[in-house]
Amino acid sequence: MADYTQLNRVRQWTNDQGVNVAYFSNFQTIQYLTGFGSDPIERVLALVVFPDQDPFLFCPALEVEAVKDTGWPFGVYGYLDHENAYAMIADQIKHRTDKTTKWAIEMGNLTIERFNQLHEQFPTSMFDTDATDFIASLRVIKTPHEIELLNAAGAEADYAFEIGFKAVAAGVPEQRVAAELQYALMKRGVMNMSFETLIQAGAHAAEPHGATSDHKIENNELVLFDLGTVHDGYISDASRTVALGTLNEKQADIYKVCLEAQLAAMDAAKPGITAAELDKVARDIIDHAGYGEYFIHRLGHGMGQSEHEYPSIMEGNDLVLTEGMCFSIEPGIYIPDVAGVRIEDCVHITADGCEPFTHTSKELTYVG
Amino acid sequence: MADYTQLNRVRQWTNDQGVNVAYFSNFQTIQYLTGFGSDPIERVLALVVFPDQDPFLFCPALEVEAVKDTGWPFGVYGYLDHENAYAMIADQIKHRTDKTTKWAIEMGNLTIERFNQLHEQFPTSMFDTDATDFIASLRVIKTPHEIELLNAAGAEADYAFEIGFKAVAAGVPEQRVAAELQYALMKRGVMNMSFETLIQAGAHAAEPHGATSDHKIENNELVLFDLGTVHDGYISDASRTVALGTLNEKQADIYKVCLEAQLAAMDAAKPGITAAELDKVARDIIDHAGYGEYFIHRLGHGMGQSEHEYPSIMEGNDLVLTEGMCFSIEPGIYIPDVAGVRIEDCVHITADGCEPFTHTSKELTYVG
Repeated sequence: MADYTQLNRVRQWTNDQGVNVAYFSNFQTIQYLTGFGSDPIERVLALVVFPDQDPFLFCPALEVEAVKDTGWPFGVYGYLDHENAYAMIADQIKHRTDKTTKWAIEMGNLTIERFNQLHEQFPTSMFDTDATDFIASLRVIKTPHEIELLNAAGAEADYAFEIGFKAVAAGVPEQRVAAELQYALMKRGVMNMSFETLIQAGAHAAEPHGATSDHKIENNELVLFDLGTVHDGYISDASRTVALGTLNEKQADIYKVCLEAQLAAMDAAKPGITAAELDKVARDIIDHAGYGEYFIHRLGHGMGQSEHEYPSIMEGNDLVLTEGMCFSIEPGIYIPDVAGVRIEDCVHITADGCEPFTHTSKELTYVG
Repeated sequence: MADYTQLNRVRQWTNDQGVNVAYFSNFQTIQYLTGFGSDPIERVLALVVFPDQDPFLFCPALEVEAVKDTGWPFGVYGYLDHENAYAMIADQIKHRTDKTTKWAIEMGNLTIERFNQLHEQFPTSMFDTDATDFIASLRVIKTPHEIELLNAAGAEADYAFEIGFKAVAAGVPEQRVAAELQYALMKRGVMNMSFETLIQAGAHAAEPHGATSDHKIENNELVLFDLGTVHDGYISDASRTVALGTLNEKQADIYKVCLEAQLAAMDAAKPGITAAELDKVARDIIDHAGYGEYFIHRLGHGMGQSEHEYPSIMEGNDLVLTEGMCFSIEPGIYIPDVAGVRIEDCVHITADGCEPFTHTSKELTYVG
């Protein structure tokens, strides 16, 4: 059950900003603030917060019981598919306050169409305050409870590697390896991967956005794993690259360089370094080894409820890393028609360094 | 490979509307028009269409090769994470035309934040044309090729039921049944479910938005399955409710009524009936049997690339159904603390009726 500490901070923020009504539409924001997590897709889900009134939740009628089950102590109102959700939300707001001049909305989430429907209900209001960055500033610093959930998700990813490495053999399709590790997870009750499991062998792994296919793994190849699970609304995300058979000099070298870059970045990740500086730590090593042109993405992405959060660990981002920030450290070297290597842990920044959520060995591992 | 017929219709539409630039941001629209399907999540993906110039795609640098692999014959431009995507898009547009006064955008998809970034590049342009409904009007009528893919996805769902029914036994957790059927699918190379597989036994099935849990199936219960796969970008979605052991009179009755409602709606689904009328066909049967208050959702939703498309089969929707429309027919009866039953096929409207994509028997089936 949520303790609503962050929700209280949002209420305080509306007061500080002189906002009369704060309207949250991002289901992950709502999960974060209320403990109720459900993606409504095309339906309407909203959390409305006031400086001097209790907040309320508005959701599809089907979800009302699920909201109550979380212990939500404030109002929750459901609507049926043929009802006008925005008119009903407006009624609830007007029932609570006649001060609706200044709104905060999530501009990073609300579509123009939905904004227009909301605006129609309050045609003379001002919607000029964006809550997106404020919510991001809360979410970017993970609480000890969140770190606990991220560690639990990380342990599931470690288990998936263990099973997956055993499934690798010459002649086995990439998809079969994914099937075996996901089946093992499901048998433990882990029903949701945080993204599509990626198993790529040999030159296939040089397509960093390729997909797991029916391509058969061959001897003397590197096999790239990128996977993660969802644990109680929090995710894991980790990559390992393992060897089947014997590696040639080139394969061994790119693995060595990628690992060196990953370990150097793990070592450098601590309070005070900027996101751009951290990216550069790994990138310099890969550059100096002559593979710079093959490291074609940022070093990492923020993560927590999803793998698409702040901070972004990349060139140009001068954000100073602080305790509680969580992100991936995932250098990769992708040489077309040769091989692809990526080594990734997600970590949280501690008082004087960082701790990974996954602990599977990163030393070159021979499987099969 | 896409034949770009629909893309040509979009270009014609921009001409008819007097639009200089049409900007598409919904990745499913882009998949539909170009054959390139990839959800960019927080990254930028755009298709820009002109009345009198070739269109172009703009995407993360990592995706450029994947776009070319589809056979896309027009321009495609990638950006790196630290680059200003909107400035780069603006450059490409200005390179092609100096007529950028009147824009069409997808108001149902574009967030306010992204709209502002685009607007900043073209501060004097008018963005008053919404392409959302036009695209929906194209997508709502499926082509024979799309029907073929939907049939293939349906066959995968039928296979999943076959495996899943065999896995049901007293003492088996719901999650284990989901694990077995998903493992069987993955071994056939079906790696993606279209949504989280729902297996709910007994009273648990009376929570229509509940989740598959570690709850153990017991004898003399109804077990509800709701599942679907993704086949080449198109989905299946079907529900069956089966019996383990012996049913009491109440369980048998709600099954009988739900099936009668489903079959009556299948029979009534044909060109000329409205969505609201079709909903009423099923609802009247359930109402007359005295279970009206337990049928708490619309009869169906449109589907194709996702299960969240038009048409919505519900009260108040006077849309006349026509050949090529695809949607679910899924009456349900959920009696709290007793049982839940849902029977669902997705269908496409034909010249004189409808055809389902799934063919698993709907007669009451005893398993275990």
